Amino acid sequence: MKVVKIGGNVVDNPELLERFCTDFAALPGPKCLVHGGGVMASGIQKALGQEPVKIEGRRVTDEDTLRVVTMVYAGWCNKHITALLQARGCNAIGLSGCDGGVITAPKRPPRTLSDGVTQVDYGFVGDVTPACVDRKLVLSLCEMGLVPVFSAINHDGLGQLLNTNADTVACSVAAALGGELVYCFEKKGVLSDINDENSVIPLIDEAAFASLKAGGKVAEGMIPKLETAFSALRHGAVAAVIKHSDDLLKAGGTRLEL
Amino acid sequence: MKVVKIGGNVVDNPELLERFCTDFAALPGPKCLVHGGGVMASGIQKALGQEPVKIEGRRVTDEDTLRVVTMVYAGWCNKHITALLQARGCNAIGLSGCDGGVITAPKRPPRTLSDGVTQVDYGFVGDVTPACVDRKLVLSLCEMGLVPVFSAINHDGLGQLLNTNADTVACSVAAALGGELVYCFEKKGVLSDINDENSVIPLIDEAAFASLKAGGKVAEGMIPKLETAFSALRHGAVAAVIKHSDDLLKAGGTRLEL
Repeated sequence: MKVVKIGGNVVDNPELLERFCTDFAALPGPKCLVHGGGVMASGIQKALGQEPVKIEGRRVTDEDTLRVVTMVYAGWCNKHITALLQARGCNAIGLSGCDGGVITAPKRPPRTLSDGVTQVDYGFVGDVTPACVDRKLVLSLCEMGLVPVFSAINHDGLGQLLNTNADTVACSVAAALGGELVYCFEKKGVLSDINDENSVIPLIDEAAFASLKAGGKVAEGMIPKLETAFSALRHGAVAAVIKHSDDLLKAGGTRLEL
Repeated sequence: MKVVKIGGNVVDNPELLERFCTDFAALPGPKCLVHGGGVMASGIQKALGQEPVKIEGRRVTDEDTLRVVTMVYAGWCNKHITALLQARGCNAIGLSGCDGGVITAPKRPPRTLSDGVTQVDYGFVGDVTPACVDRKLVLSLCEMGLVPVFSAINHDGLGQLLNTNADTVACSVAAALGGELVYCFEKKGVLSDINDENSVIPLIDEAAFASLKAGGKVAEGMIPKLETAFSALRHGAVAAVIKHSDDLLKAGGTRLEL
């Protein structure tokens, strides 16, 4: 089982997205897709007079924000991608966590900021773990020949939709299914030199990751992605690779190992 | 199999919607829900600087409009209702037509207006018929204990999402499944006197419908609904009833017969 994740930069780029969908449809064997949201949500928030709020790099999701991200991620992005895959002979089924209760996550409790004192309530945000995923339902859908396409909108089982992190959703699904995690984005892998597209590191284990971090060699945004992917490997995913969205059917990219 | 439809007035009213979801969750036997969209889409269109365009009562759906209705109907409304049902023990799964290809509809060709001359292209609009519904997929999902919740966003199978009419979706699903169609709205049924909430007509057959129409007795907006429901009966639905969304578990309303 392959669990492929595409980020917002692919979702936002019609050419990249169409090429990716063609490749994903051609990928043999059982598979799932998890997609991020792109920048459309922020644009619509601003048009509606909402001011996006981030605290320590994380988005605060109040009721209005939740409505917009649900519209954009679970609505437009999820159905647009699903329709593109259907047109390519891939029997995709778009899912958010509430659908069949496939991912039910607890709401994030208030967090203490880095000052060690201030408590912040991030609002309608959930934290997905492998235990949140209804593995049997995903496998049943796959056995029917369907290909699940997950948005990062989930629910708490008590009637509340929750905004969650798409990388974490992908890792949790891969871990729960014992699958192979494939992160697709707009670089050829983890680069040792951010200015050199060809400096892809072919293999990173946990020791190498620690030294890359300590040496300030990994781009800031990659660190949480890599941490999430290593966590997936520790919790049941059988492999993890990070590559360009154009390279889904090709070898290459950065492979992670424990 | 019961196929229940709720209109935008129920979707837009949090109290009506929560009460309806509680009753729908309690409805015994296999069932599906089809929901309309409400007025939220028009509000968001205006906020985004789009001008809703209607020609002879029907909305023209250009690319920007399609994006908004997909966000609102397939995103917010569909996932909100699905999460409310999940919280009530109903194993709902929200579906748009692209999901598993469950409803694949042709794009509406340009139409001639009532002047008999002018051709209008309504844009990204589809016309759903019973043949558009993947009956086997709906039944397979129901056999797994899932309860399909349909938005009125469908696709053409060629990668294009299409805006369709929720009444027609409900009728097509009921006809395709040989189910019982239940239209729920904010009146107790078809009224013989629009100003008297208690003037519900208990039974309307096609002859009675013709004379009600001829006598100008039926509210304008009810006529296409009744025509669609009669069409469902002619194409395989086993019953059709129109009632208040608070009366789902009660007798009453207006029953239609051929």
